[in-house]
Amino acid sequence: MKRVTLLLFVVATIAAVAVFTVTTSHHVTAQEAAPIFVKKIPTGYRDWKLVSVAHEAGDLNDIRAVLGNDIAIKAYREGKLPFPEGAIVGRIAWSYVASAENNKTFGREQSFVAGSPTDAYLQFMVKDSKKYAATGGWGYSSFDKNGKPTDEAAMMTCFPCHQALKDRDFIFTRYTP
Amino acid sequence: MKRVTLLLFVVATIAAVAVFTVTTSHHVTAQEAAPIFVKKIPTGYRDWKLVSVAHEAGDLNDIRAVLGNDIAIKAYREGKLPFPEGAIVGRIAWSYVASAENNKTFGREQSFVAGSPTDAYLQFMVKDSKKYAATGGWGYSSFDKNGKPTDEAAMMTCFPCHQALKDRDFIFTRYTP
Repeated sequence: MKRVTLLLFVVATIAAVAVFTVTTSHHVTAQEAAPIFVKKIPTGYRDWKLVSVAHEAGDLNDIRAVLGNDIAIKAYREGKLPFPEGAIVGRIAWSYVASAENNKTFGREQSFVAGSPTDAYLQFMVKDSKKYAATGGWGYSSFDKNGKPTDEAAMMTCFPCHQALKDRDFIFTRYTP
Repeated sequence: MKRVTLLLFVVATIAAVAVFTVTTSHHVTAQEAAPIFVKKIPTGYRDWKLVSVAHEAGDLNDIRAVLGNDIAIKAYREGKLPFPEGAIVGRIAWSYVASAENNKTFGREQSFVAGSPTDAYLQFMVKDSKKYAATGGWGYSSFDKNGKPTDEAAMMTCFPCHQALKDRDFIFTRYTP
């Protein structure tokens, strides 16, 4: 019996260590990956002030507005870089559609307006230089029209592209008065 | 002397009547024309919330944001027509320019951004159904980048075009959430 007890004890210990190790390593992996991404749509973003507008042609084929929370707008207007902690820059992208009703009124084909939300409807960059240190101090997020976050594999492509703009604190959009 | 005095009196009277007539008719003309146009840029418009965005190709060749004051945004979001008194809808138009820096980063020609202010940089429609009764209850205004109002002859073309949208209270831009 003593031998059996000892064996059980050894097995139990190994199992416990194994469980602990798996849990810990999973926890560490999650911690390493999570800080890059923001999984919650910032409250009240649709009321934020305008930074600028753009049209992305090609595969994206959208027309977009970039908005900023008060911290971001203040920094933009003062031309301060890097953006302070708590700054959030958001972008809304709608499908880029010719407006038949506008064109009819103007008497020419000239008007393109914002249609339905695109697959990457909402995107935000949230400034927290400690939490998101690995990605230039910004946490990235992307949501479809139902508020579903974009999968993490796709999100891995955000920072490598923004990294080219290190001199402008990784932000593409310039403020247009 | 009496004849000279009488003559002077007659001349003075004619002159006074002439001055009065010119002043009055000028005053009436100004009053008739003024209600259509708003000559002052509304305070704080750049902080207003976003209605939507658009690109006008052709001669205009701009990219634009339409903003609304709180009264206008509330009505837009509630889908209420006509817009209530005090509503102001504003539109900022920037030149439509290809972004060399964005295209370089993306590795393809796809990005069009807001450049410098256009000749008709700012336009506003101000709702005051009594004051602007002759033009559907909206006063129109247009300003260049220096804040100079567009000449009145050009402003006469606003309402005839907006008139086509009577069912939507003369407003082209739809709110995009």
